[in-house]
Amino acid sequence: MPEDSNPIPNWQRQDLPPTLSQRFEFESYPATRRFLDGVAKLAEDAGHYPNLSFGKTYVSVTLDADGKKIGPDIVTLAHKIDALVTKTE
Amino acid sequence: MPEDSNPIPNWQRQDLPPTLSQRFEFESYPATRRFLDGVAKLAEDAGHYPNLSFGKTYVSVTLDADGKKIGPDIVTLAHKIDALVTKTE
Repeated sequence: MPEDSNPIPNWQRQDLPPTLSQRFEFESYPATRRFLDGVAKLAEDAGHYPNLSFGKTYVSVTLDADGKKIGPDIVTLAHKIDALVTKTE
Repeated sequence: MPEDSNPIPNWQRQDLPPTLSQRFEFESYPATRRFLDGVAKLAEDAGHYPNLSFGKTYVSVTLDADGKKIGPDIVTLAHKIDALVTKTE
């Protein structure tokens, strides 16, 4: 893909340092908690730990690549995190 | 207590809006995860949901009081969160 394209359009791409981030909103704390548990499972499976900020009804996820360019493994993780939303709502 | 005193000295007090915050560092992801699960349990019991930011080996906790002054319930929650650390390390 082109150097400056966004590999996953609904996420926010940042370049210095390279990160992909996304904010998710939920109807309730239990839905937030289910999503967080799902992200934790994905992170453990991938061996890659996002930075997360969350409150009662929102979660902000930031994926970095340890200073390297965002590669396909990170994009795959972002897609898997997106896919959790329909399962947790 | 005096209006401007810090009700829990090892936490950072902020006044606009009123919050108490603290950053915790851990040796490993499993220790981080145990601490997060402990905070979630305390939050559910208290019916008060902190804002948390975390990565593989750190957690930043911010307690607010919905725009009101920090009261004893929030300070109690902060103490309980502190007490988790010795259990999760």
